[in-house]
Amino acid sequence: MATTKGIAASNGIAIAKAYQLTAPDLTFENKKTDDPKAEIDRLDTALEKSKQELQKIKEHTLETLGDEHAEIFSAHLLVLSDPELIKPMKEKIQADNVIAETALKETATTFIEMFKAMDNEYMRERAADIADVTQRVMAHLLGVSIPDPALIDEEVIILANDLTPSDTAQLNRQFVKGFATDIGGRTSHSAIMARSLEIPAVVGTKDITKQISNNELVIVDGIDGTVVVAPSEEELAAYRDKQASYEAQKEEWAKLIDEPTFTKDGEQVELVGNIGTPEDADGVLANGGEGVGLYRTEFLYMGKNEMPTEEEQYQAYKTVLEKMEGKPVVVRTLDVGGDKKISYLDLPEEMNPFLGFRAIRFCLDEQTVFRTQLRALLRASAHGNLKIMFPMVATLDEFRQAKGMLLEEKEKLQHEGVTISDDIEIGIMVEIPATAVLAKQFAKEADFFSVGTNDLIQYTMAADRMNERVSYLYQPYNPAILNLLNNVIEAAHAEGKWAGMCGEMAGDPVAIPLLLALGLDEFSMSATSILPARTQMSKLSKEKLASYKDKILSMGTAEEVVAFIREKTAE
Amino acid sequence: MATTKGIAASNGIAIAKAYQLTAPDLTFENKKTDDPKAEIDRLDTALEKSKQELQKIKEHTLETLGDEHAEIFSAHLLVLSDPELIKPMKEKIQADNVIAETALKETATTFIEMFKAMDNEYMRERAADIADVTQRVMAHLLGVSIPDPALIDEEVIILANDLTPSDTAQLNRQFVKGFATDIGGRTSHSAIMARSLEIPAVVGTKDITKQISNNELVIVDGIDGTVVVAPSEEELAAYRDKQASYEAQKEEWAKLIDEPTFTKDGEQVELVGNIGTPEDADGVLANGGEGVGLYRTEFLYMGKNEMPTEEEQYQAYKTVLEKMEGKPVVVRTLDVGGDKKISYLDLPEEMNPFLGFRAIRFCLDEQTVFRTQLRALLRASAHGNLKIMFPMVATLDEFRQAKGMLLEEKEKLQHEGVTISDDIEIGIMVEIPATAVLAKQFAKEADFFSVGTNDLIQYTMAADRMNERVSYLYQPYNPAILNLLNNVIEAAHAEGKWAGMCGEMAGDPVAIPLLLALGLDEFSMSATSILPARTQMSKLSKEKLASYKDKILSMGTAEEVVAFIREKTAE
Repeated sequence: MATTKGIAASNGIAIAKAYQLTAPDLTFENKKTDDPKAEIDRLDTALEKSKQELQKIKEHTLETLGDEHAEIFSAHLLVLSDPELIKPMKEKIQADNVIAETALKETATTFIEMFKAMDNEYMRERAADIADVTQRVMAHLLGVSIPDPALIDEEVIILANDLTPSDTAQLNRQFVKGFATDIGGRTSHSAIMARSLEIPAVVGTKDITKQISNNELVIVDGIDGTVVVAPSEEELAAYRDKQASYEAQKEEWAKLIDEPTFTKDGEQVELVGNIGTPEDADGVLANGGEGVGLYRTEFLYMGKNEMPTEEEQYQAYKTVLEKMEGKPVVVRTLDVGGDKKISYLDLPEEMNPFLGFRAIRFCLDEQTVFRTQLRALLRASAHGNLKIMFPMVATLDEFRQAKGMLLEEKEKLQHEGVTISDDIEIGIMVEIPATAVLAKQFAKEADFFSVGTNDLIQYTMAADRMNERVSYLYQPYNPAILNLLNNVIEAAHAEGKWAGMCGEMAGDPVAIPLLLALGLDEFSMSATSILPARTQMSKLSKEKLASYKDKILSMGTAEEVVAFIREKTAE
Repeated sequence: MATTKGIAASNGIAIAKAYQLTAPDLTFENKKTDDPKAEIDRLDTALEKSKQELQKIKEHTLETLGDEHAEIFSAHLLVLSDPELIKPMKEKIQADNVIAETALKETATTFIEMFKAMDNEYMRERAADIADVTQRVMAHLLGVSIPDPALIDEEVIILANDLTPSDTAQLNRQFVKGFATDIGGRTSHSAIMARSLEIPAVVGTKDITKQISNNELVIVDGIDGTVVVAPSEEELAAYRDKQASYEAQKEEWAKLIDEPTFTKDGEQVELVGNIGTPEDADGVLANGGEGVGLYRTEFLYMGKNEMPTEEEQYQAYKTVLEKMEGKPVVVRTLDVGGDKKISYLDLPEEMNPFLGFRAIRFCLDEQTVFRTQLRALLRASAHGNLKIMFPMVATLDEFRQAKGMLLEEKEKLQHEGVTISDDIEIGIMVEIPATAVLAKQFAKEADFFSVGTNDLIQYTMAADRMNERVSYLYQPYNPAILNLLNNVIEAAHAEGKWAGMCGEMAGDPVAIPLLLALGLDEFSMSATSILPARTQMSKLSKEKLASYKDKILSMGTAEEVVAFIREKTAE
């Protein structure tokens, strides 16, 4: 009946009854109290109950989703034990003779506003944590219950303004068939969770929760980003067909799970996955990945109060290498700064953080941080097929310095009698235009290239990809980008090296024929994109695509490129 | 005796007695008053005296330095008449029974702190304005006088923590031979003023004012960025020699003032100047410029409360074209956003302003602003040799849109019977890597290229040039930059178009032989660099330099390039 467009966040079609995951009524009347002591006790009880609940959710999450996702609840538990937050509440009860609800609300609001006003993404996220946690405490104070998705016992589609980490952790995959939210984008927490749970999802619909009542029938089309409320019989039939053909497609994809990746004309390429934590390696294997093309190690450093030790890092790297059983694992050394802040590292506030002190620039300066990571990597290398790459390399000199430190640490470790693999490839993440332009010179000294398209595109177009006003300039198919990629790939091949890609572009069905035309060797993407990509490639002739290369590279606009490649691959 | 290193801000050697331009003692004792009315009168008198003084300084500046420099004092006069600032002072006197000094100080401090805390360069500059102005009022309240450089009647070198706009405006060129400051960089107000007054200057010495007493002998070496205090006889003699040879060099330069620019082997290039205001055109002519290679029109929009009208703009453009008497004038259309904010334009706050909504991106969206400028330019075109270029073009589509609007406005004006030149060249400012990479495609549609190296370098290296932590990556001689320049120049020539450069690199003596090697046609620079560049070029063989091109382009680092070109040009 009513169709709403949102952002396609996770592939698939879900058809089920609506389940509104709306917040309970947490309003209350501000009152004075004669017995502040009793109010403090009430607050303590509510805090204690909240902690117990969070502890349970954390354990449940750990079992179902693993370490990384459970981490958020450790943060929430810390908030509930933070004297800087709790003490002012109790003081307020005593000083102003107010009830616990008022003290909780006012103190939390002050902290939330304070964090929100900070010019720092990480701190603004802390505001969301405090809001999430104090809601739970408030519910306990008021004796109301927060809707508990864990209690759902029939197939539903969850509707919410946004899903908090606690919400998503409790979703029961058996019954939750899909979800749709009012806010959020493709990289919001909800969207990422949906993809990792492989549940169809549409986010950023603006007002879907206002359009639907509980138990109404809803269709979530996570392929096109559409939500259909109270569908007609025809619509329902059409979507059931679409759902069936998507399921059929998934089965087709699954056939290639244990196969290597070949184009129609028998050219082999490598299809590997991007991971953030050791647990993610399971998803890569489950989706037929031939290795890990990008291990983002910064997650090891996040959500903590201090640097991960060499031993902690060693264990993480070793776990990934062992899980991958000899398949290649490309580890990117620490990429912090820019939009990724870490509280205990001394990162400056900058006017243009994307053009600032980040990644290898930071590591070459903070050698203790960097060398600790390098040692952990070198020690782990004995357990698998490790390749190391440095992010944000802009000059040969930076690469030489980083490689020099790696070799120094290797020598030191060998001196200490540690076994280290003898064939660790050392590569460069190509994400700065200067490096792409000068690829020929870099290829003489690096063992491989992996293009980080997210950054390469934003620098080449001089447009912040997070800035809506200029997002029209984020053009992966712009011939300028394709010419730079061509330069990188040709330079690698001329020196007998390989060139990969680990940006979002590598898994994009429109980009894949273009990248085959350019001769890219390795494609690294989200685990769930691997099988669709393998299937797509099996139907494309690399030789035929390569014959279009010169024509594509001489085009003027992204639109021309897309129109041309669509036409040629539809033939 | 003691040598201090600073930043060379303006060429030349000055030797003279030190004159400390230090602020007078403006401390006072906080006191209560019984007669608030009298204190308000005292404040009014001090305000009035300050206004009269500022009015005089403004007129003096207008005569000696022109409109643009006088503008700052209009801003200061506005501050003194701003009821939002003055009213709270008077209210404080009445409410708290404090003396005028206390009210002035406390109110001003509140405003200064407020503006300083703002996340906006323009507002932070307002803090400096208020500080500058209230000092003057305070001096009048306390009956002390602010040191008046206009009263200096013997040759001196001015020493100051920093020079305020009022200070520099009052400097008498006859007596002020040079200056040195504790703070500031090459683009600080003091440094820019020094170059425009052609007075040797060293800035950013950290503590030069603490090292010198009044009347001590000082040498300011604005070539090397050195200040020598109480020099020995030998030092004095050496610097007198250096001064004499610099003067001789200036005389040599002056010989070429009316000459065209030829290399030693008879190849002609064009040497033109960068300007910000119509008055600056005089400096270009006085320094032998063959035209204007970059007219930065945003100064027309700055320091105002509303958009300049079409007529105001027309008059400014016409003035420049007439002054240049048929010599080419390349006008860059409005380049705002990034670090250039304008209060009355709706520019968003951005996380990465250098990668944001600026220049042509803004103009294509705010068409009223853009079309008004285009109309003014078209009308002015009848008065000289106008060329128009668009800044920050990233895609062919943007260029086509901008050019389309220009042609639409041209047609409308012709319809209204306005005379418009028939050969206005329409070009692109090449400052985004994508545009440099795709120069071949752009050259088919643009009449010329002018490379803006300041931005091109920062985007290509992904390093904010204003950020000290990554300033080591601002590498004009990096082979990646030279390869992009080569691509731009070759693409232009292949289509029979010309390629120029209007970034700082064009006037840099190290870059000049490299740019000749690449075949650059037009070099646009600060007026004072034109004659030294012409002299340098007359001694270089373009053919010989061109023979090194392939070798230079295949180098790996900026250091290699510099060492090579130094060796080859020293031969």
